[in-house]
Amino acid sequence: MLFHVRMDVRIPNDLDPNVRAETVAREKAYSQELQRSGKWPEIWRIVGEYSNFSIFDVESNDELHEILSGLPLFPYMDIAVTPLATHPSDVKA
Amino acid sequence: MLFHVRMDVRIPNDLDPNVRAETVAREKAYSQELQRSGKWPEIWRIVGEYSNFSIFDVESNDELHEILSGLPLFPYMDIAVTPLATHPSDVKA
Amino acid sequence: MLFHVRMDVRIPNDLDPNVRAETVAREKAYSQELQRSGKWPEIWRIVGEYSNFSIFDVESNDELHEILSGLPLFPYMDIAVTPLATHPSDVKA
Amino acid sequence: MLFHVRMDVRIPNDLDPNVRAETVAREKAYSQELQRSGKWPEIWRIVGEYSNFSIFDVESNDELHEILSGLPLFPYMDIAVTPLATHPSDVKA
Amino acid sequence: MLFHVRMDVRIPNDLDPNVRAETVAREKAYSQELQRSGKWPEIWRIVGEYSNFSIFDVESNDELHEILSGLPLFPYMDIAVTPLATHPSDVKA
Amino acid sequence: MLFHVRMDVRIPNDLDPNVRAETVAREKAYSQELQRSGKWPEIWRIVGEYSNFSIFDVESNDELHEILSGLPLFPYMDIAVTPLATHPSDVKA
Amino acid sequence: MLFHVRMDVRIPNDLDPNVRAETVAREKAYSQELQRSGKWPEIWRIVGEYSNFSIFDVESNDELHEILSGLPLFPYMDIAVTPLATHPSDVKA
Amino acid sequence: MLFHVRMDVRIPNDLDPNVRAETVAREKAYSQELQRSGKWPEIWRIVGEYSNFSIFDVESNDELHEILSGLPLFPYMDIAVTPLATHPSDVKA
Amino acid sequence: MLFHVRMDVRIPNDLDPNVRAETVAREKAYSQELQRSGKWPEIWRIVGEYSNFSIFDVESNDELHEILSGLPLFPYMDIAVTPLATHPSDVKA
Amino acid sequence: MLFHVRMDVRIPNDLDPNVRAETVAREKAYSQELQRSGKWPEIWRIVGEYSNFSIFDVESNDELHEILSGLPLFPYMDIAVTPLATHPSDVKA
Repeated sequence: MLFHVRMDVRIPNDLDPNVRAETVAREKAYSQELQRSGKWPEIWRIVGEYSNFSIFDVESNDELHEILSGLPLFPYMDIAVTPLATHPSDVKA
Repeated sequence: MLFHVRMDVRIPNDLDPNVRAETVAREKAYSQELQRSGKWPEIWRIVGEYSNFSIFDVESNDELHEILSGLPLFPYMDIAVTPLATHPSDVKA
Repeated sequence: MLFHVRMDVRIPNDLDPNVRAETVAREKAYSQELQRSGKWPEIWRIVGEYSNFSIFDVESNDELHEILSGLPLFPYMDIAVTPLATHPSDVKA
Repeated sequence: MLFHVRMDVRIPNDLDPNVRAETVAREKAYSQELQRSGKWPEIWRIVGEYSNFSIFDVESNDELHEILSGLPLFPYMDIAVTPLATHPSDVKA
Repeated sequence: MLFHVRMDVRIPNDLDPNVRAETVAREKAYSQELQRSGKWPEIWRIVGEYSNFSIFDVESNDELHEILSGLPLFPYMDIAVTPLATHPSDVKA
Repeated sequence: MLFHVRMDVRIPNDLDPNVRAETVAREKAYSQELQRSGKWPEIWRIVGEYSNFSIFDVESNDELHEILSGLPLFPYMDIAVTPLATHPSDVKA
Repeated sequence: MLFHVRMDVRIPNDLDPNVRAETVAREKAYSQELQRSGKWPEIWRIVGEYSNFSIFDVESNDELHEILSGLPLFPYMDIAVTPLATHPSDVKA
Repeated sequence: MLFHVRMDVRIPNDLDPNVRAETVAREKAYSQELQRSGKWPEIWRIVGEYSNFSIFDVESNDELHEILSGLPLFPYMDIAVTPLATHPSDVKA
Repeated sequence: MLFHVRMDVRIPNDLDPNVRAETVAREKAYSQELQRSGKWPEIWRIVGEYSNFSIFDVESNDELHEILSGLPLFPYMDIAVTPLATHPSDVKA
Repeated sequence: MLFHVRMDVRIPNDLDPNVRAETVAREKAYSQELQRSGKWPEIWRIVGEYSNFSIFDVESNDELHEILSGLPLFPYMDIAVTPLATHPSDVKA
């Protein structure tokens, strides 16, 4: 089941640089593990912004919330989730 | 080069039903031809709305505008385009 | 799987009164059948508005879109869908 | 009498971690006591956000404000209240 | 129990002038009857707009919705309802 | 001459608790003195928010600004002023 | 007593051209009479828009509403009124 | 003196096709004459929208309003004007 | 050439009180000098807000930006500039 | 390929003045180098704001993101990117 997610990262300017670097590194590892598992099939950078559009493929709303709230950068992000359905014109469907 | 596009369809209630049906049919054919060509690799329905999120893969801004303004439903749509870049955490990149 | 849905009804003033009455009657029957099936467990009127907040309990995003796009008033409604997860403080969970 | 409430939690990043943990624990206990009393019959997590949709069942506007302003996290929340009425299509009404 | 209500009137320009005049007259009578009953204790015109701020004093959310949805101009109004509580600084409370 | 005023209080979390308590106490005294004078005939709490709707009855715009900018909490409030006129349906007018 | 007013004119495209021309002519005469009386001391066109910023100098809110609601274009305008006070840095005050 | 202008074209669907075609043709001629005169040095299509960003180079605000309000599509456009100044980092300045 | 300017002052609560007082005093002197020169012919306080509406009369966009960016409170203000043209109904024009 | 970019600079008030001055100086050098290379052909100051409108001429979305995210002031800016296409009325096209 697919969901469209927009994440806007807003790390406070006064965050300790070491904490920041370590959190960003953990975020990358966390994201890549989920990408490899097939749960997070797409991630794109929005040009000019510290933001991404992503596609998640999960079993349930609860699973999606567990994944998103576990993001190391979750306390510093605005997240907007949109549920997706099959489009009637989709040639792959 | 990838672009994220949101399309919201707002067909006027008083449009002639035959014109409407014929336009929607042409829209579907137009979309599917572009999907098969690889220019329009993804299209998802937004749940509960007459709207879609799509990904386009084109050579230039001009090519994208030519495609979008050629949509049979273009006169009845609000379209928002967001340029995408490779995300540094993308395992496929 | 639960979803929160807000529906705002905007029937055009120039809709034929018979078409309007017949559509509203079909909407009510459609809604009540889904309520009885357990798919639409809650519906509340928003005070002062021709709008409702509803809770849907469905198997998938596709099922929810099929239900919502099948509403007789769908062409005259603005719909906003929010996926819900279990709250960690919920005593019923 | 039912009210729909949305709560968005925005705890400042520089809040003392012990104060934060203690406040969140008190919030949970406060919420669960009200849920068990029947005053707060529903609470759902909004997927991807530190937010909830809730339903309150109270005697009056004053009682609702007393409950909400007594939330341990009240100083750190944006709250939006919407009064609900019985929907004419509600099969339970 | 008090509620703050804002009403913005948007009568379509093409409404039949007789229907318009008759509806506006019924609206005035309906409002004045409720004012005299004590249910609608305050009504003010917003300067420069075809809008009002009003205070309603009702027994329940259901009663308020019944009153508002019965307004002759209801099909042509945007209405926003805000529940009110006693203010701790109110010298009359 | 009547004015509708909405005040949203946003006291910074890091304000010294003694300063905060003293300022809130001065605010209450200031408000109650104006209420007793007839300049501030109505004040209601907005349910779930640290906000109020108020009605002021003053001689001029200058007098209203003098009153509002003298509020002890003025530096911590967002204030929106709307001038009111007599409503043609008002039975008291 | 001064008020700042923004008027945005939105005449429907299907208004009869004679009615339109006659209404616009009456609007101009009405405005110029009020300018000459001193009630409407300033009017500026907003560049690129069918809109104006104006200053009114009136005795009361009621007088201002009477003037604005009497504008021949009132049914086709969005109007926003802001009360003005003397600025403490104003060298003319 | 430079101004940034955004124009969003919203031609009503029920405009007579001949009037529409003739108006669009006049718009193009009007624009190209101003471009050749140097008053309208830049015009770009916004991808996916019936909109443009333009730069105007005029003597005064009055001249700019005269140009914009003379656009054949002016009755069907939303226009937003932003005055521009020399940027301190501009290597051409 | 006239411009309409709205300034909203947002001085941080933690600014040193002496710096604040000194900056506000310089702002007043700067404004009054410009008022006396004829560059800043009008300034009004917006009732209930730490904001003003002003009219500037300058030779060019560059001159206006130089004036506004030189305001001692510029780092603490949100400023919105609107170019003005002569209104065709203006009796003084 | 052209892109329209709006940059709003929001440097925190508590940034060390030396860091601020050094960052602003690096920003200027970085911008001027890109202007001279032809990648950043236009930059204008928005009157009254610490903001600019710019035009970029790049090979791809990835190149644009690399340029923008490399701006020394990037952590302190809100950036909005709009892809541009050739306008059919452009006399230079």
